[in-house]
Amino acid sequence: MTNGITSVELRVRYAETDQMGVAYHTHYLVWCEVARTDHLCQLGVSYRSLEDGGLWLAVVDARIRYGASARYDDLVRVRCWVRDLGSRRIVFGYAMDRPADAAHLAIAQTALIALDHSHTVTRLPPAALGKLSVAPDPVRVPF
Amino acid sequence: MTNGITSVELRVRYAETDQMGVAYHTHYLVWCEVARTDHLCQLGVSYRSLEDGGLWLAVVDARIRYGASARYDDLVRVRCWVRDLGSRRIVFGYAMDRPADAAHLAIAQTALIALDHSHTVTRLPPAALGKLSVAPDPVRVPF
Amino acid sequence: MTNGITSVELRVRYAETDQMGVAYHTHYLVWCEVARTDHLCQLGVSYRSLEDGGLWLAVVDARIRYGASARYDDLVRVRCWVRDLGSRRIVFGYAMDRPADAAHLAIAQTALIALDHSHTVTRLPPAALGKLSVAPDPVRVPF
Amino acid sequence: MTNGITSVELRVRYAETDQMGVAYHTHYLVWCEVARTDHLCQLGVSYRSLEDGGLWLAVVDARIRYGASARYDDLVRVRCWVRDLGSRRIVFGYAMDRPADAAHLAIAQTALIALDHSHTVTRLPPAALGKLSVAPDPVRVPF
Repeated sequence: MTNGITSVELRVRYAETDQMGVAYHTHYLVWCEVARTDHLCQLGVSYRSLEDGGLWLAVVDARIRYGASARYDDLVRVRCWVRDLGSRRIVFGYAMDRPADAAHLAIAQTALIALDHSHTVTRLPPAALGKLSVAPDPVRVPF
Repeated sequence: MTNGITSVELRVRYAETDQMGVAYHTHYLVWCEVARTDHLCQLGVSYRSLEDGGLWLAVVDARIRYGASARYDDLVRVRCWVRDLGSRRIVFGYAMDRPADAAHLAIAQTALIALDHSHTVTRLPPAALGKLSVAPDPVRVPF
Repeated sequence: MTNGITSVELRVRYAETDQMGVAYHTHYLVWCEVARTDHLCQLGVSYRSLEDGGLWLAVVDARIRYGASARYDDLVRVRCWVRDLGSRRIVFGYAMDRPADAAHLAIAQTALIALDHSHTVTRLPPAALGKLSVAPDPVRVPF
Repeated sequence: MTNGITSVELRVRYAETDQMGVAYHTHYLVWCEVARTDHLCQLGVSYRSLEDGGLWLAVVDARIRYGASARYDDLVRVRCWVRDLGSRRIVFGYAMDRPADAAHLAIAQTALIALDHSHTVTRLPPAALGKLSVAPDPVRVPF
């Protein structure tokens, strides 16, 4: 965690490739989910506990711009930060790159809203909200 | 439905290919799930209703033997039948082929058990059980 | 095909659900790929043949705004059209809904560029380009 | 690496859950693929290099028996070893458990054959074959 930006590394699985010989484009958004879970965890917010407590964070908007392609067995770094924070809505930003050759892979953004288990929009728990804070974009985000 | 064997057709998605240029091997088991849902449906058993009624069918064993490879945009036929039927357990068989060239793609088998929503093994509802029946294997099954 | 808009229907697979009890958000973009393949096919352009001829269409930007949630076994309709068309780049729009209750599920957009097999940007084949045409958005698109 | 058995740990992704609230059953076989890649790597065999050298290892048979269910955010350990080894075919075994509570999750086996890039069965390169060796099953395998 540096200036509100966390970072995870993961390796591209064979199952994630397609016949173009690169990672299929929707998996990058799964990697964002991995980075988001980790971001919350590093701030002391367990998403699993939030769900057990009756709260869901549902993705309501996702945007991603692709650069170089990630390939099988590549180590991918995903940085994650909070771009915008409200009582019922969080916007996360993501920057993906490949440390081995410093290739820029993708920039993404997802907006999530808090839902209770009847799928009604609700407030984020103050305890969780208090641990999160907006960070300046570490890279230019085209959305 | 012929002699207890149902059949669905589906087209291989780009997302299902891998860098070998063929469908990634685990997706065949997803196609089995599509065929199983359809098999139950054709017999008047809605799996969705079973779940709403508090029952889950969980896969406890899966086996698959691959033949020719399915490729992007191929039309795949999946035949499905019941191989064994008990009060708490059903074994389904599957035969996958490609009608365009009659290529044999895969033979599979999955065993499912009935669970209630506390994840305890339970009995299949008699109404559902009464609609199912064991069919002889339409092809040789190596398990 | 009506006014340059094509439509496919698909059923939500169990494999596509998550523990929120709805379709996991990235699968909607896979459904867009299914609709895109079908759109090209209905216009007489086989994406499979394009690839065999040495051309790839790679997603370089994707955006999606979610509405109601698709659930297991729901029949989902995906409409697809061309929003913008250049010699090397196509932007597709998608509108997803659930005919059973007319629920609006999602609006999406993907931009694709033509690549040759050395992953260099290239021109779309004139034969394919000539079959495509831009259609007005059938719904309001927030991107 | 102990007695020819390697081990990887991975965390269950939200994307891998289904509406039963557990990891969808086919993802366990993807985890096997992660463990297999890692097993080869630890023995000095890069599967990526094998492919670059014109060889594919294709799964021709897969079997899996499930125990307790893996859940979102669980840390899963996958042990991997070689059960059988021929000049053109390798059989891998896998044992999956959850270290947090020592729960047994699954036992699996996959058979792979070596293919050249025209999809013809071929011999494994002696250099790779020489690094692999059969290990006794660390657990009882029901196949």
